[in-house]
Amino acid sequence: MTKTRLSLYDTTLRDGQQTQGVQFSTEEKHAIAQTLDQLGVDYIEGGWPGANPTDSAFFDAAPKTRATMTAFGMTKRAGRSAENDDVLAAVMNANTPAVCLVGKTNTFHVTEALGITPDENLENIRASVAHIVAKGREALFDAEHFFDGYAIDPGYATACLDAAREAGARWLVLCDTNGGTLPARIAEVVDALIAGTAGTKAFPGTQLGIHTHNDTEQAVAGSLAAVDAGACQIQGTLNGLGERCGNANLIALIPTLLLKEPYASRFETGVAEDALEGLTRASRQLDEVLNRVPQKQAAYVGASAFAHKAGLHASAIVKNPATYEHIDPARVGNSRIIPMSNQAGQSNLRRRLTEAGVEVEKDNPALLRILQVVKDREDRGYTYDMAQASFELLARDELGLLSQFFEVERYRVISERRRNARGQVVVESEAVVTVQLQDGSKRTGYYKNEHATDLHDDGPVNALWQALRADLGPLQAAIDGIRLTDFKVRITNGGTEAVTRVIIDFEDETGRTWSTVGVSPNIVDASFEALLDAINWRLQRNGGSA
Amino acid sequence: MTKTRLSLYDTTLRDGQQTQGVQFSTEEKHAIAQTLDQLGVDYIEGGWPGANPTDSAFFDAAPKTRATMTAFGMTKRAGRSAENDDVLAAVMNANTPAVCLVGKTNTFHVTEALGITPDENLENIRASVAHIVAKGREALFDAEHFFDGYAIDPGYATACLDAAREAGARWLVLCDTNGGTLPARIAEVVDALIAGTAGTKAFPGTQLGIHTHNDTEQAVAGSLAAVDAGACQIQGTLNGLGERCGNANLIALIPTLLLKEPYASRFETGVAEDALEGLTRASRQLDEVLNRVPQKQAAYVGASAFAHKAGLHASAIVKNPATYEHIDPARVGNSRIIPMSNQAGQSNLRRRLTEAGVEVEKDNPALLRILQVVKDREDRGYTYDMAQASFELLARDELGLLSQFFEVERYRVISERRRNARGQVVVESEAVVTVQLQDGSKRTGYYKNEHATDLHDDGPVNALWQALRADLGPLQAAIDGIRLTDFKVRITNGGTEAVTRVIIDFEDETGRTWSTVGVSPNIVDASFEALLDAINWRLQRNGGSA
Repeated sequence: MTKTRLSLYDTTLRDGQQTQGVQFSTEEKHAIAQTLDQLGVDYIEGGWPGANPTDSAFFDAAPKTRATMTAFGMTKRAGRSAENDDVLAAVMNANTPAVCLVGKTNTFHVTEALGITPDENLENIRASVAHIVAKGREALFDAEHFFDGYAIDPGYATACLDAAREAGARWLVLCDTNGGTLPARIAEVVDALIAGTAGTKAFPGTQLGIHTHNDTEQAVAGSLAAVDAGACQIQGTLNGLGERCGNANLIALIPTLLLKEPYASRFETGVAEDALEGLTRASRQLDEVLNRVPQKQAAYVGASAFAHKAGLHASAIVKNPATYEHIDPARVGNSRIIPMSNQAGQSNLRRRLTEAGVEVEKDNPALLRILQVVKDREDRGYTYDMAQASFELLARDELGLLSQFFEVERYRVISERRRNARGQVVVESEAVVTVQLQDGSKRTGYYKNEHATDLHDDGPVNALWQALRADLGPLQAAIDGIRLTDFKVRITNGGTEAVTRVIIDFEDETGRTWSTVGVSPNIVDASFEALLDAINWRLQRNGGSA
Repeated sequence: MTKTRLSLYDTTLRDGQQTQGVQFSTEEKHAIAQTLDQLGVDYIEGGWPGANPTDSAFFDAAPKTRATMTAFGMTKRAGRSAENDDVLAAVMNANTPAVCLVGKTNTFHVTEALGITPDENLENIRASVAHIVAKGREALFDAEHFFDGYAIDPGYATACLDAAREAGARWLVLCDTNGGTLPARIAEVVDALIAGTAGTKAFPGTQLGIHTHNDTEQAVAGSLAAVDAGACQIQGTLNGLGERCGNANLIALIPTLLLKEPYASRFETGVAEDALEGLTRASRQLDEVLNRVPQKQAAYVGASAFAHKAGLHASAIVKNPATYEHIDPARVGNSRIIPMSNQAGQSNLRRRLTEAGVEVEKDNPALLRILQVVKDREDRGYTYDMAQASFELLARDELGLLSQFFEVERYRVISERRRNARGQVVVESEAVVTVQLQDGSKRTGYYKNEHATDLHDDGPVNALWQALRADLGPLQAAIDGIRLTDFKVRITNGGTEAVTRVIIDFEDETGRTWSTVGVSPNIVDASFEALLDAINWRLQRNGGSA
């Protein structure tokens, strides 16, 4: 059977930028475009040239991509020609091989928002698309509010599509702009368009695209419903970025199209198998640009997407991963996690230790002791689900496999708010940490943030971290590359008293990541425990050398 | 037309607890159960008694709810009777009116994970359900891996359902345990079950439930597909909490069922209109318990769900909200985020001020300034939803209604870990705070925790709090009764840098409660800001006297 080619159109750089709090720089747009191109999407919508300075700057030096670079704009205004519309001219001046124009298809919006007649709107669509085609560009028509418009006046909504088609548009993209149309309704409308039962001529599915939003948490399902009905282009964004609740999430759609039936057999896309293995990385790269903590629960690519916590599940997974996994996580570049928790048993424990490079024979009595220590510590407020490095240290200790590279003698940290010589309020911290090395020698690290730019320093935990890693003598080379990437604090119950639990994420110069946990009624001491674990874990793994 | 009654079954307290990093305390489970009951779900699955100490403790003093409290467990093991299965006995001992048992329906799992024969498994299902019914309880059968099992061997999978039904199960819940089944396939299978074309007797839709997971980001769509095909119970969780990518999100499903066609006309649920207006609050309450930052993009309830950033959209919204909103946000207790200049923003602000006892006339220009300050501060990481006292201080300041009772000159706090004379590791903190009163006199408060019982003191924030309230001279009587009741810390994004946000809850001797917020890269200084706001708020309200 010949597979149907599905087109993937990414709008992270345009609709994704409508997300509250998101404003890409030109450099960030370049980085995201590269990620998209490696992934294998067909179109990259770079922005609206003329409407936004960074969008214009992006197109001025647009990256060379295999994907078709596309500029976004709107149909010309009434009362002037396409040639004389300065907004449209700015879009054309970006010189992209493709141009996507949004236009109204809903009579309510034509009269309410634009204040023009339905016929004027049809002429705006026709003339604008014809102008793009005349200039030798590929034209896409974004039919704004199509489903709402179709509900009010199907004849007019389809007449708008027809105007764009007759003027030469390659794609007619059905936009569910407000995000309120449910998947079954989307399928029904696409069906009617293709069958020609909407009261007009039939539209071929190979010309129809779908653009959904996640306002009912069904943007992915709505996109697939349109494809089921015959639409051949999907518009979406990385990680479902976008205005309000976001756009259709290409990161969730792509593996479903490639790995799941009936899609895998019926369709092909521009995403290759090895590019699919870069999916998790692509998702994390966008989070990195946005300085966001990645969603642990994200479909396919989340850190928890293949994490098995329930005792029943975890023990079955050890026997056969297919029992509780819908796909092999490696296909999307993700990996399986069997977290420690009070529901986990010995077999999971051994498996987890094996992953950490520690082989333990089946009936080693230390296994039971480790489970007991984990349980006791969880009762005191610790958690090891997300602090695997601290778990590994605990297990190594019980197994007699923990090397003691140094011991902390003392630390002292001061935070102070005062007025400086100019009368400004400044906040500063300083810390001193003394350790004893294996050879008996002592080292003292000191740190003071003297140059806080905004008069507020990074606080006592950062000061302690800098002082702790300032002078570890011969161990220094092994820990210099460690970077703190995230810091989470939770007040929890340890026994009867409220205690502070701190989880810290780290990364080293090789890109390896690990997480540690500390618990104490004193937030500084809880943090220090997690910082210390991080250094100890790195030293265990590297045997004290870099 | 008579509406069909849909049953909503919440499993936040059981399946939701399978989320990586989530472990509810008994008190938290009680709070969540109350939230669920107010919302109007039909069943609350409280946990697995016997498998988890907090689950057992929860059922020992289960809250009285209108919803049917349900205990979860698994079908009896082979080789013993239902009466003699201690795991099942622990579940029955919770004495809930309903019991939901998970059982296998997939021959692959029966042989691979359980290692028993398919007939033994059928007998386990039958005998377990019969045991529940014989004890006068309502029985639900959770058909684990039903869709995968049906794909391999539809005859056996349906025979499992039939065994449960014949033994008296009220509901047969079709679980897509691995989350890999797409909505269209779910509809097809439910169709076949109801039509009786699966090669067995037909099952009535009024006995069928659906339990989906979000591994392809389609848990909501899969649930609705099952309902479209005739299933009458939906299982899900608040905010889609759950193992891996989470369960079906009831917070997204409920408004779709109540407000969208064809559901609104065809079905009714136990969720009343006014309870629906509590939906946003219910969602935030769970995040609060979990100390999670609420998802801004969450469908219906996210802070961005009705935020209109695009210029075209925002100006149309001012003319008519229906142009870019799929529902009225007030229906789910959410609100529109619109340009600051808009009249709606101002009237909303005036209502909040009135609640705080501050009456402001309609066109006071301070209103616009307050909105701008709130926006600027929220961009820097502040939040005022849960820190009304800090909001009130900010507003009073702009309105010229803020009394200045004292000013902080400086503070200094030290945390130290060292060895005491007996060689034990001790952690101690001390703080000093100097303030200037209105009459120009200075006061210095000092605090050191000399008597830490477990050698770990309560940390720098407590030391600062004690030092700040140690000596405020004539103001002392007004603040002596203030008690700190909760302390929440989040790392958030203030502009481009990660900053620490601290929210602290307080209570006074009259039982009055209030909350304040502080933000800084320095956790100690963020906390100090919130402590200071708490004292200031109390002084504003009491005019400096007790």
